[in-house]
Amino acid sequence: MTRPTPISGFPEWMPPQRMIEQYVVDRIRNTFELYGFAPLETRAVEPLDQLLRKGETSKEVYVLRRLQAEAEGADDDALGLHFDLTVPFARFILENSGKLQFPFRRYQIQKVWRGERPQEGRYREFLQADIDVVDRDTLPFHYEAEMPLVVADALGGLPIPPIRIQVNNRKVCEGFYRGVGITDPEAALRAVDKLDKIGPDRVAELLMETAGASQAQAKAALALAEISAGDASFADAVRALGVEDPLLDEGLAELVRVVETANEHAPGLLVADLKIARGLDYYTGTVYETQLRGYERFGSICSGGRYDNLASTGTERYPGVGISIGVSRMLGLLFGANALTISRQVPTCVLVALPAEEDRLACERIARALRRRGIATEVAPAAAKYGKQIRYAERRGIPYVWFPGQPDEVKDIRSGDQVEADAASWQPPAEDLRPVVSGAS
Amino acid sequence: MTRPTPISGFPEWMPPQRMIEQYVVDRIRNTFELYGFAPLETRAVEPLDQLLRKGETSKEVYVLRRLQAEAEGADDDALGLHFDLTVPFARFILENSGKLQFPFRRYQIQKVWRGERPQEGRYREFLQADIDVVDRDTLPFHYEAEMPLVVADALGGLPIPPIRIQVNNRKVCEGFYRGVGITDPEAALRAVDKLDKIGPDRVAELLMETAGASQAQAKAALALAEISAGDASFADAVRALGVEDPLLDEGLAELVRVVETANEHAPGLLVADLKIARGLDYYTGTVYETQLRGYERFGSICSGGRYDNLASTGTERYPGVGISIGVSRMLGLLFGANALTISRQVPTCVLVALPAEEDRLACERIARALRRRGIATEVAPAAAKYGKQIRYAERRGIPYVWFPGQPDEVKDIRSGDQVEADAASWQPPAEDLRPVVSGAS
Repeated sequence: MTRPTPISGFPEWMPPQRMIEQYVVDRIRNTFELYGFAPLETRAVEPLDQLLRKGETSKEVYVLRRLQAEAEGADDDALGLHFDLTVPFARFILENSGKLQFPFRRYQIQKVWRGERPQEGRYREFLQADIDVVDRDTLPFHYEAEMPLVVADALGGLPIPPIRIQVNNRKVCEGFYRGVGITDPEAALRAVDKLDKIGPDRVAELLMETAGASQAQAKAALALAEISAGDASFADAVRALGVEDPLLDEGLAELVRVVETANEHAPGLLVADLKIARGLDYYTGTVYETQLRGYERFGSICSGGRYDNLASTGTERYPGVGISIGVSRMLGLLFGANALTISRQVPTCVLVALPAEEDRLACERIARALRRRGIATEVAPAAAKYGKQIRYAERRGIPYVWFPGQPDEVKDIRSGDQVEADAASWQPPAEDLRPVVSGAS
Repeated sequence: MTRPTPISGFPEWMPPQRMIEQYVVDRIRNTFELYGFAPLETRAVEPLDQLLRKGETSKEVYVLRRLQAEAEGADDDALGLHFDLTVPFARFILENSGKLQFPFRRYQIQKVWRGERPQEGRYREFLQADIDVVDRDTLPFHYEAEMPLVVADALGGLPIPPIRIQVNNRKVCEGFYRGVGITDPEAALRAVDKLDKIGPDRVAELLMETAGASQAQAKAALALAEISAGDASFADAVRALGVEDPLLDEGLAELVRVVETANEHAPGLLVADLKIARGLDYYTGTVYETQLRGYERFGSICSGGRYDNLASTGTERYPGVGISIGVSRMLGLLFGANALTISRQVPTCVLVALPAEEDRLACERIARALRRRGIATEVAPAAAKYGKQIRYAERRGIPYVWFPGQPDEVKDIRSGDQVEADAASWQPPAEDLRPVVSGAS
């Protein structure tokens, strides 16, 4: 076999980066559980027709076929890999609604796949961490104010740059567009969604070409999109544009409440930014995007919103709201900037040196005594000279080497300090017990 | 959308089962780390030609294609989902050998996919938890004795039936077959591997048909396969068969050492069982299978072995040994027998009751004070009557309901006990802090 090479868009972290990723995921998961979200994993595959319900994303789907199956076309039973965790969750809700308690709060941390062209911070396989709340028939609005607070709590304890969550409300945009007479608000949203990428002039053209807007209507839509504020003053700025519509009023009241709730619990976290539209068609209320300070140009690392119609049959309806942290995306950016480090390359805290191969059993007993008290321990691979055994520890960042003897001794190989020690009671300093994750120095 | 239905072979646990799965995986992961294994995740896909290197498994592979890609045949760039974690790990080693420290100890806990016919305990998508040690050029034998001890430690603390690990050594079988003159030892191994499924008569026929064995040779191979012992006495039983071969002697010495090491650290864990062959061709030394007591008829829940030639190029060679816990398989069997339960359906320990919607901010402050001290807390979804709010907690198994007031009070809704409490200091009993996983009562 020749030496294999990486596959573009399918990142693989080396073990130290994977340890950082686990640390981040553990923190996120622990926070989600503190807020009472229950864990869920859905299968990686969905029926292809479910994945294609929203035509926009069809180009991104990976379709599966069993190697030995007869040549299959795009038949009804074809399966594809999920491209997000929201569509599978909505399907899960409908499939299991009789067994669930509503409102249902779940989190889901899983890989998703998209056949997009890979670029920095954009992968074909990546890890998402989602929370959603769904209820039967109606969903109280206050959950829309809760989502950003959970994310801020989850990411706030990590050694990463601060985040800023940008919020908007589909009702504000749709009500406003209706108020100025734009007849295709979804096309208008899709045009405004491109503002950061193509600039106001091209968006104005798009609004006229695809949403049937007049020049004055396009100008009004752009004026709305320019409004941004960290407090309720954005609502005054919207009203100053002189557009009247009941849906607009409802959206403004909701957005004010989301911003004010955040300012109470987490000042500086949220900004109402009326250009935020989210590409997906299924959002119907609050929408979220998130910027990582210093990495704004790479786009949102955490997005979501309220969806009223994603999980519904003819007779049942489960409105929901959710937000999704792009874990791979965020870590890819931070790893690319060397902005996260870990204190060692292995979980191991202690290497037990091996005087001679016939001492292996005794050395394993020492290791077991340490492990029993939660101290990650390896026994040296071979009874080489102690200098070589110490280098085994050094190259991996293992801080302690244990020398069996009468009595045993343990050496901190960073300082050179060596002391007598008993495997039944010796304890490393708390900061050495596990690898420590830090931000850039 | 009509109500969706499950897809055969792709299990989805409900949240309480998923909590149990996470508990099991956390325990496994923590144990792996205590032994110094570093975490790794590889991408879900491998080049199809890599997956098909061993022809035997080609029928099981799911092939990927992007929906919008031109019609693709089985071209060189085609990707398939990995069917185990060993083949991707061997590829990762070759790809990154220059960046890794050897011997390299890693664990990997990920989903794998096989297009097999689903049956009880056999899935098309399932979770595996693997450890492997690889070294450059040569790998010390003692790692083959370590693998079963790590697994026993990982599973030993869980409320599941005890396990028994069956070990054999390929060198014993191959040396013995050579010693009796069977010319195709791989075909012989594949035949003996079917012993439990098809019985000795059919295996004898297979040995004659596919491995070129005479009747006497087939009888000798079956006599070897019948030997089983929990201590080194198996070696005497083999020698009593009167077959002489240097590879047989080497294999017996190794197998004795694996059994004796286990009997020192974990008496009763291991049994040398000379019919264990493992279907895969790449094993070259010790092989492992594992039975869960009471579930023997469903086959092995944890398997692996030593492989000398899986990761090698023309100039480099990375022999390894590994073992893989079939997490989905094991849990599927236990869930099917209702042999694992959890004390509640959500992580939540406390529900803060909501006197009126305008108290939400104050109730969220209570919740934040509790969460800050690690107590999972939700605020009630609506200001319904307290009876209804208590039922919200009851239906989910949330043990405590918090009533804001002057002073606040907290009620254990199982006992009905209600006491004054301060969110800054109240602590639930340790056993109520998190959901508790138990075995069948």
